[in-house]
Amino acid sequence: MNWPGHFNDCTNDRLEDSAIAAIMKVAAAEKALSLAAGEPFGALYPIGHLQGSFRRVLSSDLPVWGYSNTRSGVPLLREWIAEWMSGDGLTPEWVTPDNLFITNGSQEGIYLLSECFLDPGDAVLVESPSYPEALGVFQKSGAECLGVPLLSDGPDMEALETVLARKKVKFFYTIPTFQNPSGFTTSDEKKRRILDLAKKHDFLVLEDDPYRNISFDGHPGGTYLKAAGDDRRVIYLGSFSKIIAPGLRCGWIISPEEVIEKLLKFRIMGTLCLPEMIQYAIVDFVKGIDLSEHLKALSETYRQHRDALFSSLREHAGPEGLEITAPGGGFFLWGCVPWISDMSEFAFFAIRNEKVAVIPGNIFFPERGQGMDTIRLSFSKVIPSMAREGSKRLGEALRKFRAVQEGRS
Amino acid sequence: MNWPGHFNDCTNDRLEDSAIAAIMKVAAAEKALSLAAGEPFGALYPIGHLQGSFRRVLSSDLPVWGYSNTRSGVPLLREWIAEWMSGDGLTPEWVTPDNLFITNGSQEGIYLLSECFLDPGDAVLVESPSYPEALGVFQKSGAECLGVPLLSDGPDMEALETVLARKKVKFFYTIPTFQNPSGFTTSDEKKRRILDLAKKHDFLVLEDDPYRNISFDGHPGGTYLKAAGDDRRVIYLGSFSKIIAPGLRCGWIISPEEVIEKLLKFRIMGTLCLPEMIQYAIVDFVKGIDLSEHLKALSETYRQHRDALFSSLREHAGPEGLEITAPGGGFFLWGCVPWISDMSEFAFFAIRNEKVAVIPGNIFFPERGQGMDTIRLSFSKVIPSMAREGSKRLGEALRKFRAVQEGRS
Repeated sequence: MNWPGHFNDCTNDRLEDSAIAAIMKVAAAEKALSLAAGEPFGALYPIGHLQGSFRRVLSSDLPVWGYSNTRSGVPLLREWIAEWMSGDGLTPEWVTPDNLFITNGSQEGIYLLSECFLDPGDAVLVESPSYPEALGVFQKSGAECLGVPLLSDGPDMEALETVLARKKVKFFYTIPTFQNPSGFTTSDEKKRRILDLAKKHDFLVLEDDPYRNISFDGHPGGTYLKAAGDDRRVIYLGSFSKIIAPGLRCGWIISPEEVIEKLLKFRIMGTLCLPEMIQYAIVDFVKGIDLSEHLKALSETYRQHRDALFSSLREHAGPEGLEITAPGGGFFLWGCVPWISDMSEFAFFAIRNEKVAVIPGNIFFPERGQGMDTIRLSFSKVIPSMAREGSKRLGEALRKFRAVQEGRS
Repeated sequence: MNWPGHFNDCTNDRLEDSAIAAIMKVAAAEKALSLAAGEPFGALYPIGHLQGSFRRVLSSDLPVWGYSNTRSGVPLLREWIAEWMSGDGLTPEWVTPDNLFITNGSQEGIYLLSECFLDPGDAVLVESPSYPEALGVFQKSGAECLGVPLLSDGPDMEALETVLARKKVKFFYTIPTFQNPSGFTTSDEKKRRILDLAKKHDFLVLEDDPYRNISFDGHPGGTYLKAAGDDRRVIYLGSFSKIIAPGLRCGWIISPEEVIEKLLKFRIMGTLCLPEMIQYAIVDFVKGIDLSEHLKALSETYRQHRDALFSSLREHAGPEGLEITAPGGGFFLWGCVPWISDMSEFAFFAIRNEKVAVIPGNIFFPERGQGMDTIRLSFSKVIPSMAREGSKRLGEALRKFRAVQEGRS
């Protein structure tokens, strides 16, 4: 069989491999200590409560075994999310449960929205660096990703205006809160300025916000969604993956009804419906616990993980040239090693020689060759003793890599 | 917001409404007795066993709460399916668990395969009539659906060859066993002849096979997959929806590794992974029961439902012109009322006037205006007392509709 002759152009040419998955695979094979995984800390999964929720839901009369009649997701869950986010001051007044659409994680949300909006040849504005599995979706749709440098308080406004003057963009994909990979949070003032530009140039804003509730220093600022008010051009993506458990595969989209109508059609064609037992279990779970206490406890543990990795890295890898910033929330430290010219090469070197895995920062940039000296270090799953050991290994890997580099030149 | 100006062409122009969903909505609003739903009979969901399976899985050490590392689905489940199907003589020798890919129901399989293969302007060969939610996916991809009339032993071969002589097709989408909506089963001999044509004209075969195990008269024949042997151009779609419960949202694709590699990339971009607790629960379930006894019991109940609806309809609606055939398995009776020229009009008339819901057969045809006198009647959820009442109502609806028609002319 000549498979390339049967596949369509997208499948032949536009499906990227996941660079993170490739590194994680080598790291697992080498049994490396991982500072790489963008996953929650397993010990924080509220398993006991979830078991109870599933037990109650599966022994109830709830319609969990048949096809769903509510393609947009269980109404009770949509109602709860709408109320919760409204209570946190994150949604404008027009948002009702009818503006919510439940997804198989926010990854499915990104995918479905790309299906709605993108055609080959379109342009999408993205933060540089950004989440590679989103960039891959946009590229799969045949869209060009135009990067705008991300500063510690949000996009570089001058660069953003330059891009917009040059090219019509379909939407701006942003992770405004404790961004992956940078940990940066866009200021509310910049959000307002970007929304003004969105109105002027008539593009949409896709606000991907999974890390908001992993916050170490109080409230991380508002949402684009709320700030846009009645200008309904912001589509918001939320997720339970980081605050309950990613294995539940449950996220949500908030958008104007015109978009929800289209998503419902994609839902029927793409999957008919999702397994709603999970959505009912989440309703039971969030109503049965003190959620703000749960989020406080999560954030406190992640803060300790951040502090431990940050100080260990400064001690053991700082002297070798690693420069890092500590974020106010989320899962990641972001940094650079200015003397390294190809962090991907270093990453594989570190796994093979010192059994420590990091993610090279360059894979987060929309343009090849950018951020070649940058590095992402995840603290989410790293307990303090691992942080010390991992930092020592990373320091040692840097020393050895430098020696190899110097030997070459 | 000018939403059509933001949506892409596909979203603006190629997303069909689900005709079945539209009818079901009116039927529900009118509280009509339903002979329409293509769903399993709820009383047959093995809820007690499933509760036990979920309880065991969720209290085990299985990795159900985090992100999955096995994007193609839980290995234990893929191994079990491969062994089960091989034991039933349904797979050729090249099929291993690595050729299996777990999906959110076979609907997701249809969608993902369309994503792999179809470009706007492509042509797809389909049975006429066929499953409309598959036709909608192909149309969404911009492909043209070319229908070949389906006879009681499979496609009309002469018509099929005429289409193939005229046009290059990407694949033939077929539901060879107890087809939806016709209930027809393609003979093994026709499968072989179609595979010869597939080789000659170099197209793929997508074999959608969800009804195989709801069989009333023994073995329903082999698969295209097995018949093709080493000519690996058949991609098979299986599903647990009809034999366990559709709310589990679990199906599978069997295909050559070249396709699996691509599906893995779509999996990462589309959803990252599926909720694997469900897959583990299915493994526990199928290993914990006598599956062939379970399938025998299901089939026996559905056979009784078929018989009851078939004889009631013959008694009460036959005199009004309803002609029906009884299938050897699956969920549906298929028929026609030759004096009706627009079955959709009749369907809404029957719901509103006699509170009985059927699906007009014309919505299953790829070309508008075909099968206008055809009708699908589902027996799956219809117990004998409902079958009698529904048949009486249908007979009465036909009588009244004829009177209205005659009054008009």
